[in-house]
Amino acid sequence: MKELYVIKIGGNILDDAGSLDKFLYELAKLPGYKILVHGGGKMATELSTKLNIETKMVEGRRITDEKTLKVTAMVYAGWINKTTVAKLQSYGCNAIGLSGADAMCVPAKKRPVTEVDFGFVGDILSKHINTAFFQNLLEFGITPVVAPITCDAKGQLLNTNADTIASTIAEALSEDYQTHLIYCFEQNGVLLNRSKADSMIERIDSFKYEILKSEKIIADGMIPKLDNAFKAREAGVKTVTIGHANNLLNIIKKQANAGTYIGN
Amino acid sequence: MKELYVIKIGGNILDDAGSLDKFLYELAKLPGYKILVHGGGKMATELSTKLNIETKMVEGRRITDEKTLKVTAMVYAGWINKTTVAKLQSYGCNAIGLSGADAMCVPAKKRPVTEVDFGFVGDILSKHINTAFFQNLLEFGITPVVAPITCDAKGQLLNTNADTIASTIAEALSEDYQTHLIYCFEQNGVLLNRSKADSMIERIDSFKYEILKSEKIIADGMIPKLDNAFKAREAGVKTVTIGHANNLLNIIKKQANAGTYIGN
Repeated sequence: MKELYVIKIGGNILDDAGSLDKFLYELAKLPGYKILVHGGGKMATELSTKLNIETKMVEGRRITDEKTLKVTAMVYAGWINKTTVAKLQSYGCNAIGLSGADAMCVPAKKRPVTEVDFGFVGDILSKHINTAFFQNLLEFGITPVVAPITCDAKGQLLNTNADTIASTIAEALSEDYQTHLIYCFEQNGVLLNRSKADSMIERIDSFKYEILKSEKIIADGMIPKLDNAFKAREAGVKTVTIGHANNLLNIIKKQANAGTYIGN
Repeated sequence: MKELYVIKIGGNILDDAGSLDKFLYELAKLPGYKILVHGGGKMATELSTKLNIETKMVEGRRITDEKTLKVTAMVYAGWINKTTVAKLQSYGCNAIGLSGADAMCVPAKKRPVTEVDFGFVGDILSKHINTAFFQNLLEFGITPVVAPITCDAKGQLLNTNADTIASTIAEALSEDYQTHLIYCFEQNGVLLNRSKADSMIERIDSFKYEILKSEKIIADGMIPKLDNAFKAREAGVKTVTIGHANNLLNIIKKQANAGTYIGN
């Protein structure tokens, strides 16, 4: 089977033009099949502030009312997605920007209201990822760049977690490709001590994960990211790694600074 | 040869939710190959105002500085493009949103500075339209929805005239399809008297066009639209029509309210 890299680039790197540029340059030069999924960064919060729209977060997730949805769709699917595509094109990588609504490649439904009403937030219909469409693009030599905006069957746009989009796409395509999922962000990997950049854990299996969680060494936003990572491994994704966006090629070549490897 | 409809939907209709909805519903139900190109509408100006960015127009065209470019990319390629795609999906039309940067489907270069510096405005490289990409999507049953944002070879995003994007795509694809170009806007067609909705001209050939221009009956923004229309006919586009967005099906069926037909 052919290899496919599904690479997610996270928030803080998107706000650092130099790091982002280096990352996109290396991504563009990476041969073979690849899909990039990007998050949002601070720009949506900044634009909301300028427009006097209050930003509400619960458990690190954005509550998305109608005005906030518009801001996130504009920033994620408009500005970040298209500047990323244009940059990749200039580096010789034939990229295409997508939201989940485009060709319904990542269909979703509005998250049900329970204790928290997240508003216009999407939960992905993971069994309905449009794998034929992604394959068609990849075989045509095109690199999809996916923004964290989806829609439901009624045509309602929904703000959607980029980590989950990346893992869900990787899972769905693992029947047809040897799929490698890489979460890139502003740290070298999962850290034993979050204030020490050199305390990276090289490998976490599910046993170690439970211990690190119980000791509260792994906490907060890292938990959903790792839950996604383990779920992806179980669903057939060949490798999952969490590492620094500056080290993309090291991660792929499994060299020094290759990030935290998820699994046995 | 198979028939292809390239339909451009203009500014004022985009600001009228009811008309837009009816138009998208009819477009979704239209069988066969189709490409939608949309303009910007008032939302970019409104957002600029809220963000204290001055809107400068010369000859009806927006001067695009860096801040204005960001606003137009967000509004056109983010909000309008994705809400349009999501709506079409909900009506059963498998749409995909594109800027010119995506798969470099509509490549451009920055307009040279002459008497006026339009800023980050794109002139389309008409010989380099990615026709293979459009054909691939169409044959895959997907309807492209194109926003008026392009980029140059250096990865610089550029604000680009939607009328010209529509005519250029129609021209480029007329070798492979019997191409019909339809400009939809908020009037029944080209009017003899702009204050009388029922004064529509049914047909304008190049001879009549020169007379109407010399009599200043056709003026302002209608001139570049009609210049595009005649150029498209000369370049092999089978039919070009200008009509009301509410009358899309009449225009296609050449029934009553079929708009103004361009050519002999």
